[in-house]
Amino acid sequence: MSTVLDENTTATAPEGRKGLREGAFGNARSLACRECGHEVELGPSYACPECFGPLEVAYDYPAVTREEIAAGPANIWRYKALLPVPDDIEQSPNTEPGFTRLLKAHNLGRELGIDNLWVKDDSTNPTNSFKDRVVACALSAARELDAKVFACPSTGNLANAVAAAGARAGIPTVVFIPSNLETPKKVNSAVFTEKLVAVDGNYDDVNKLASEIAGEEEGWAFVNVNVRPFYAEGSKTLGYEIAEQLGWRLPDQIVIPVASGSQLTKVDKAFQELIKLGLVEDKPYKVFGAQATGCSPVSAAYKAETDAIRPVKPDTIAKSLAIGNPADGIYVLDICRKSGGAVEDISDDEVREGIILLARTEGIFTETAGGTTVGVLKKLVETGQLDTSLETVVINTGHGLKTLDSVSDRVGPAATIAPSYDAFVAANIL
Amino acid sequence: MSTVLDENTTATAPEGRKGLREGAFGNARSLACRECGHEVELGPSYACPECFGPLEVAYDYPAVTREEIAAGPANIWRYKALLPVPDDIEQSPNTEPGFTRLLKAHNLGRELGIDNLWVKDDSTNPTNSFKDRVVACALSAARELDAKVFACPSTGNLANAVAAAGARAGIPTVVFIPSNLETPKKVNSAVFTEKLVAVDGNYDDVNKLASEIAGEEEGWAFVNVNVRPFYAEGSKTLGYEIAEQLGWRLPDQIVIPVASGSQLTKVDKAFQELIKLGLVEDKPYKVFGAQATGCSPVSAAYKAETDAIRPVKPDTIAKSLAIGNPADGIYVLDICRKSGGAVEDISDDEVREGIILLARTEGIFTETAGGTTVGVLKKLVETGQLDTSLETVVINTGHGLKTLDSVSDRVGPAATIAPSYDAFVAANIL
Repeated sequence: MSTVLDENTTATAPEGRKGLREGAFGNARSLACRECGHEVELGPSYACPECFGPLEVAYDYPAVTREEIAAGPANIWRYKALLPVPDDIEQSPNTEPGFTRLLKAHNLGRELGIDNLWVKDDSTNPTNSFKDRVVACALSAARELDAKVFACPSTGNLANAVAAAGARAGIPTVVFIPSNLETPKKVNSAVFTEKLVAVDGNYDDVNKLASEIAGEEEGWAFVNVNVRPFYAEGSKTLGYEIAEQLGWRLPDQIVIPVASGSQLTKVDKAFQELIKLGLVEDKPYKVFGAQATGCSPVSAAYKAETDAIRPVKPDTIAKSLAIGNPADGIYVLDICRKSGGAVEDISDDEVREGIILLARTEGIFTETAGGTTVGVLKKLVETGQLDTSLETVVINTGHGLKTLDSVSDRVGPAATIAPSYDAFVAANIL
Repeated sequence: MSTVLDENTTATAPEGRKGLREGAFGNARSLACRECGHEVELGPSYACPECFGPLEVAYDYPAVTREEIAAGPANIWRYKALLPVPDDIEQSPNTEPGFTRLLKAHNLGRELGIDNLWVKDDSTNPTNSFKDRVVACALSAARELDAKVFACPSTGNLANAVAAAGARAGIPTVVFIPSNLETPKKVNSAVFTEKLVAVDGNYDDVNKLASEIAGEEEGWAFVNVNVRPFYAEGSKTLGYEIAEQLGWRLPDQIVIPVASGSQLTKVDKAFQELIKLGLVEDKPYKVFGAQATGCSPVSAAYKAETDAIRPVKPDTIAKSLAIGNPADGIYVLDICRKSGGAVEDISDDEVREGIILLARTEGIFTETAGGTTVGVLKKLVETGQLDTSLETVVINTGHGLKTLDSVSDRVGPAATIAPSYDAFVAANIL
């Protein structure tokens, strides 16, 4: 069924590009089809030539020790042996994302009645979302494939991450966005690149245009299109970090937001790799997926006990989760069901409440995606789907400064007073 | 001249508070007057009772090794032996700031003609500015002094940091802001605390009110007023990190923004401590201060070759640097002059250019303060004040998402196109 490639096979260079250097993708062996197992050479491919299933990176795993990892840098490259990147990756300019805080959430745990709760906070990444992780891996692939242009279609976090990484790497970077995007999101990409292209259309139109360009033009690396298998591997580092920061231990339960579903499946892949490599003890863990009700095709399928994910037209404030036809939804269902977890969804009002709850309890200002995850965590407790006696991790994927409007009407000064001590006393603040 | 306290002396607890526990302030010995050297017991004091000079924390320095530091957490507490915090500081909920990226700035260096340039990027701290460092130290002091309320007057970064840290610590937190503050800055504090107080007046009015409350009320810890000596020590960690991340070496030159001047003096203090402790080689280094021309009292005094700093009424977009009467200005002058550095200032237009320059070259979106520092770096090169052959570090203190308006008119889409490949080709983006 699968074609195991000789380790010394040199992948064919895409037209117009130089040959790959040795070790360009580290310990990665091939791109393997998630459906049929067929393996193809490492390169800018993303669909299986046999069955059109999604390709993902397969490895000849090396022996890795906790000590070797701990001796690495305080960013994702400490795990470079488990990523499709060369051994000298630290020498190439990149944004150096990762190794973000894992905070013990005493207050939020008390509020929700969970004994042992942690927040993995990816809002402190270079451009303030987990996208910096995946983009760093895509950038390495683009460089090794000798791409002329680094690019993406996006409405927000991904655009910021690609524009920043491209600037730092000194590679021409083109970011495509819908022309009606809010000014702050435009600025946060335009500040990094002169080549921001506004497209008169919705996100689907932008996405379609990107695929067309990827097909027509030579040497373009679209991070979430033709180098997607390399890109997606970056999310594994969230899983590695959680395990390492817990003292090389897997949590009992983990709650992860679901957009395409890629992040959830890659965190699970990371945990499985750590078990396989003997870096953590093999133990069961439950995986939970979080969606906003306005875009909850995976949660709907989970609740209907079916594998048939019906695409939806998104209508939610959680725009970074608003993928109506999630590519990895089927794998999310599989992982959540087999692990004893669940997929759950909440209303936009509950998303807003989740943002404020996390801020007030743990001092973390999350975007709507994080509000969704925290709100779903709350609902999982209330509905008895989550075991409150087990060690639980919840992932915050981005920063509230990017979705300020979602809560700006809900919070504000407790009082407005004259500048005098008497006025302060009269306001009775405490 | 100075009263050396017995190490076993227990500091008098402020009225209404419990006695201090042993080791409450780690290896800190006393508060020593920067002017006359007089030492007072550790507590919520900030002015010398003898001469009204500023008090700063003095230590009985322990032996510390590079290995002990490297074995610590990836945040400021790896340096806890050199901070006024207890040995078990990691056990108390705090935002865990620090150990931010030190990026080799190849592109910016090439652009400016500097051979060996680094950017220390503090925009990736928990609330996206260096203030998280100082607030974490102030929070520890507030806790050890058994403060009832954690508070500050502020217009921006400090408010965010105090509100977030207070929420996480679970201590009642009151933040005072001018009532005419922009909505984003309000939201970014209000999301963390219900006790945001808007004051009808300018920042000076708010500040005066805070001092009045600190004098009248018992048990309030105003981070930048009555626990300021502890607070200010947090900035030393910027200096420690730079040296450690360079491989335990001091840079030849460093460029630091100047508001009150505290950060610059504390980075210098950190370098001197590292030399004294044998953690780095003793070598000369030049310190440069950066101001915006619209609030440049220290730069003006430097250029006039005088020690007399004339207070100014700030008029600049670099609001986080807009302190017209900088408390540590005189020490900034002293350090910059003695080290062979300088203090320089630039126009608001140059501040905006600095923001875009850093974003386009290194993928870092800085606020106006960072734009000031990068712009001053450029001017120092152009005026021959900085030696371009020497290893140089420039500090970025905060995030561009907080001062978005400063550049939103200057950057934008290169083109707006129809959603078709033909339209893309016609736009000739590359």
